[in-house]
Amino acid sequence: MVTTEIDQRCINTIRVLAADITRGANSGHPGAPMGLAPMANTLFLNHVRVDPKNPHWPGRDRFVLSNGHACALQYILLHFLGFKLSMDDLKKFRHVGSITPGHPERTHTEGIEVTTGPLGQGIANAVGLAIAEQSMAATFNKPDYPIFDNYTYVILGDGCMQEGVQSEACSLAGHLQLGKLIALYDDNHITIDGDTAVSFTEDVVKRFEAYGWHTQVLTDGDHDSSSMEEAVEKAKAVTDKPSLIKIQTTIGYGSKNQGEEKVHGSPLDPDDIKQLKEKFGFNPDENYVVPPEVYDRYHARADECDIMAKKWNKMLESYCQDYPKEGADLKRRLEGKLPDGWENYLPRYTPKDPPTATRKLSEAVIEKVASEVIPELIGGSADLTGSNNTRWKTATDFQAPTTKLGQYGGRYIRYGVREHAMHAIMNGIAAYQGLIPFGGTFLNFLTYGWGAARLTALSNLRVIYVMTHDSIGLGEDGPTHQPIESLALTRATPNMLTFRPADGNETSGAYMAALKRDKTPSILALTRQNLPHLAGSSLEAVEKGGYILEPLSDANPDIALVATGSEVSIAVDGAEILRKNGVKVRVVSMPCTELFDEQPIEYRRSVLEKGIPVVAVEALSTFGWQKYSHAQVGMVTFGASGQYKEVYEYFNITPQHVANMGQDVIKYFKDYGSIPELFPQFGPCT
Amino acid sequence: MVTTEIDQRCINTIRVLAADITRGANSGHPGAPMGLAPMANTLFLNHVRVDPKNPHWPGRDRFVLSNGHACALQYILLHFLGFKLSMDDLKKFRHVGSITPGHPERTHTEGIEVTTGPLGQGIANAVGLAIAEQSMAATFNKPDYPIFDNYTYVILGDGCMQEGVQSEACSLAGHLQLGKLIALYDDNHITIDGDTAVSFTEDVVKRFEAYGWHTQVLTDGDHDSSSMEEAVEKAKAVTDKPSLIKIQTTIGYGSKNQGEEKVHGSPLDPDDIKQLKEKFGFNPDENYVVPPEVYDRYHARADECDIMAKKWNKMLESYCQDYPKEGADLKRRLEGKLPDGWENYLPRYTPKDPPTATRKLSEAVIEKVASEVIPELIGGSADLTGSNNTRWKTATDFQAPTTKLGQYGGRYIRYGVREHAMHAIMNGIAAYQGLIPFGGTFLNFLTYGWGAARLTALSNLRVIYVMTHDSIGLGEDGPTHQPIESLALTRATPNMLTFRPADGNETSGAYMAALKRDKTPSILALTRQNLPHLAGSSLEAVEKGGYILEPLSDANPDIALVATGSEVSIAVDGAEILRKNGVKVRVVSMPCTELFDEQPIEYRRSVLEKGIPVVAVEALSTFGWQKYSHAQVGMVTFGASGQYKEVYEYFNITPQHVANMGQDVIKYFKDYGSIPELFPQFGPCT
Repeated sequence: MVTTEIDQRCINTIRVLAADITRGANSGHPGAPMGLAPMANTLFLNHVRVDPKNPHWPGRDRFVLSNGHACALQYILLHFLGFKLSMDDLKKFRHVGSITPGHPERTHTEGIEVTTGPLGQGIANAVGLAIAEQSMAATFNKPDYPIFDNYTYVILGDGCMQEGVQSEACSLAGHLQLGKLIALYDDNHITIDGDTAVSFTEDVVKRFEAYGWHTQVLTDGDHDSSSMEEAVEKAKAVTDKPSLIKIQTTIGYGSKNQGEEKVHGSPLDPDDIKQLKEKFGFNPDENYVVPPEVYDRYHARADECDIMAKKWNKMLESYCQDYPKEGADLKRRLEGKLPDGWENYLPRYTPKDPPTATRKLSEAVIEKVASEVIPELIGGSADLTGSNNTRWKTATDFQAPTTKLGQYGGRYIRYGVREHAMHAIMNGIAAYQGLIPFGGTFLNFLTYGWGAARLTALSNLRVIYVMTHDSIGLGEDGPTHQPIESLALTRATPNMLTFRPADGNETSGAYMAALKRDKTPSILALTRQNLPHLAGSSLEAVEKGGYILEPLSDANPDIALVATGSEVSIAVDGAEILRKNGVKVRVVSMPCTELFDEQPIEYRRSVLEKGIPVVAVEALSTFGWQKYSHAQVGMVTFGASGQYKEVYEYFNITPQHVANMGQDVIKYFKDYGSIPELFPQFGPCT
Repeated sequence: MVTTEIDQRCINTIRVLAADITRGANSGHPGAPMGLAPMANTLFLNHVRVDPKNPHWPGRDRFVLSNGHACALQYILLHFLGFKLSMDDLKKFRHVGSITPGHPERTHTEGIEVTTGPLGQGIANAVGLAIAEQSMAATFNKPDYPIFDNYTYVILGDGCMQEGVQSEACSLAGHLQLGKLIALYDDNHITIDGDTAVSFTEDVVKRFEAYGWHTQVLTDGDHDSSSMEEAVEKAKAVTDKPSLIKIQTTIGYGSKNQGEEKVHGSPLDPDDIKQLKEKFGFNPDENYVVPPEVYDRYHARADECDIMAKKWNKMLESYCQDYPKEGADLKRRLEGKLPDGWENYLPRYTPKDPPTATRKLSEAVIEKVASEVIPELIGGSADLTGSNNTRWKTATDFQAPTTKLGQYGGRYIRYGVREHAMHAIMNGIAAYQGLIPFGGTFLNFLTYGWGAARLTALSNLRVIYVMTHDSIGLGEDGPTHQPIESLALTRATPNMLTFRPADGNETSGAYMAALKRDKTPSILALTRQNLPHLAGSSLEAVEKGGYILEPLSDANPDIALVATGSEVSIAVDGAEILRKNGVKVRVVSMPCTELFDEQPIEYRRSVLEKGIPVVAVEALSTFGWQKYSHAQVGMVTFGASGQYKEVYEYFNITPQHVANMGQDVIKYFKDYGSIPELFPQFGPCT
């Protein structure tokens, strides 16, 4: 007997319930949950240690459903186990305001570790979760105190297996020898376009072997639970390699259309559900039925896990007594609180300090806070360490100790040239609790991994994107590397802060504001080129998003120049030219428009004041600056390759042009008779 | 002897010149060109058939330098061969206005096939070039007329090998059995972060075998030209698999720091260049020297190629006589001209036609134009064919004939769940000449491949992105799938048109405008949900970007509502509510803000008229709409999972809210005393 009777009952209940739920919603994906039922049942009844009574228990195993469209399955399992997810919630599947949305969201539903659905993200998040576990274990575990010792389980399908982010992340996972990562690959040979034969005929197992994974293949995922059980045990026994278990299944198992694309993305028809229920011993006239013995089996498992959680909590108590310093630090980190007084470590500057690139000023912040005061910072770069300046001097690389290149306690990750994986892995690390990831690449390559970055924002994760070479100011590398549209993207994204600091104080201030937001990712756009330190800049001002550089501004100005980052000093020089022509100028630095938007309307109107025309200066797309300015100096084409000063000249982003534009604007509105205010009181976006 | 004396001289000249060029620019990457010199020399002297006298010769081989940062190499080769790239141009490497920018750009430099630099793009472009070759060959070749019969050669490095886009594209290339694609993998074990041991330890060759590629390994890429020669011959002999030749080289070969990261991204120091020149028999006091025998050797090769090109041109002439219809069509396609009268095939609608989703209306266009009148259209989808509606009824899949799933003459590509590869492959297809690619995914997943999409724009390529499920209107799939920030991104991108058509006529109009632009990519943002056909819409109006829906608008309006796509009909209903309250309303449909921006200021001011306040309505981020409106109805958060009508209600994007906002705006400006105009005359972005 390869599957026990009670297991079979559980499996069939999942299948029937998945059909009911998607039918009830008149939307969703029944096929994958039905095909996955046996492996999910095996995992949750025998392996995954999660406790509905302690859903955030730090020692729990992490489970990721990378093919998030199969989330009916995940909701069913959470319901069976006794998580805060009722039968009523299952009936509200895919309804506005429910905790059972169309794809699993960590912010909506207890028991969901990471937000999945966009294919390939979940498996890459899982790599991050497994890295976090190794990091926390290496940092906190002591003899007899295996505080962190959990597995990360993933289910993923053919769709995930085709995505580049998955390839990147799994290659890195193999390199890092993440032995506690176990991936179950649902090989059902069906994607939306039909049989995988039409586009996906590679040898996946061989590919994973090439990555250095341990691999197993099971041919009967529809029936053979005991082989799955054994395979997971075997995977656990392999400690120096991540494990892939390929399990051949039949999508929509039990449906009249099992094994076909038809069962993938729409509910089964009522006749089909009827025969399904009959086949599996359910009353075809009843919906949403869970036999008591199924609840019993899952509740028994939940009780087992609750005992483990309680034991773990006791262990933690005892740990805190034996290792009070580590214990206190651990508790603080798990709560997401930063160490008291950490802000005092942030460097401050005066205009006398030598001009410095903000990427270097960012390094100075990292050098202080990552090495001296915030041990939960875990950094890295997508193979641009020397350019992003993301590594502090005393950093150790996060590497398998056998490589002699670092150790799992190291807090610097060599992501390789894998931007998308880096972003998605950072999401996983942040979701684990206890770590704050930051990672670097060129700003232009933020969008190589935007699929993950938008999920950072949607998932309320504190991740810091250290994006250097932030404009045409990178110079010689040219337009293939010069971001133009990138900040329009980040500013248009909800729950994401875009910082473009102008100097040392603003760079420190950007980190201060970014780190304080524990549910929001931040993009730091940093220069390659040196910038002067400005009179009037401060760390605290950054938190207002935009502010008047008082020492560089005149009273009763004729015009305001609003600029960000490297263009603030250009605006300052432009102001000087205007002043020579008798024009009084206000210079506004706007390191973070999103924070500015959060200020009271009175404050915003005091900075960009009624009656004062505004010219915006930013060496990226002018798109979007109409909100804060009457005219714009910026980019409306792609950039060019050349020394950065020449490139600025070429695109007319110069003090002289700013001054000319200022004069034009003043004249225009004089002729026009009035100056439109920028902040009407209505609309969702004031 | 593994390398002849003259070959060695050529190789060393490349190395020395690469050092001079980067030193001269005081910027750039000498190491890769120096290490790649032997393989590049072998390729260009023996295999790659390109003709400086006929640089656009359609029968030429295509060469792609995927590690574009090594472009000094490519410029040197073009110079040696006699392309329009002088020694003076080499001296202007990485200078503003030169034809030798920091990374190769197809729009700047004759002989550059595709714009590379962002890692992984080139190899994926090459897959597209190889697909195009197979497609054109299957379409046009006749017995005794091998019109299309070229190879696509790629050089790529460790960086490219780590990128997900490369994995996706190479997996597909294996599936498609692209036998004429030959990739030389420069395995020098160095990336920016140092030895690949820190992050990249997978077995690349095994991975490519898993993809179904033919593989070879050469261990002495620094010296052994004859093995390379043989390996390429062997690769050519394999006709049913793409070929990977892994060649172990030493980065910066000849430098004192050869084999180290130091030689990667900055010029060698003068002492190092001196010893290099001495070592290789060059005068250390002379710069930019090419021995005559090197020119001779390359010119001799160029002459051989010119004979081939001339032969090809004769063959084409004769082909045009024997097959006049095909010949004429081919010539038309190679010129990038559309068939006469093709616009007549575009469907037109009246308000009496049943409400239809714009993705279905897009299908109706494809059904007509792809199947009946524009044979150069080559479509596809990233595994969402049934959702994107990108396939016409009579389409045949582009597949290796042995699969029995299609043939190389088929014009529908099953990209698999590989968005980034799809975008990059479309770039390659478009760059080949003679084909116009279009490809579908959900709008939200455009950014999975943004790294490629921005290069479509930078490269002046006509690619049509068919992006369906374009807002919260996709409903149940929820916020993981609902784009919010996507159109801010596309609109902020230079040389890219964003179309969001409101009905049937506008969908046809969007295709009309998009296809006419032969140097610009277009994004078509299309709904999942049905929309009514509007009175006053037209194909022609779309070309103006935005226009007044006259039959739905009042004279002397109190307010204008500007909307796009699915929100135009919401605005129309909102206008009705306002009218009931005695307010006169103008309704403006704005299917393409970028085309609107191109109109004369007078036209723009006639649509969004001075003295009439404007409310914008779009169910995506309001970011950027401040340019065209005084207030916005749109999204400032992520979306939600639910039936689409409920989701619209939830986010208050409804006729009633539009009407309320309209009333508020009117009142606000009445109190304010004036209504600011939206288009000042100054600034680069008016």
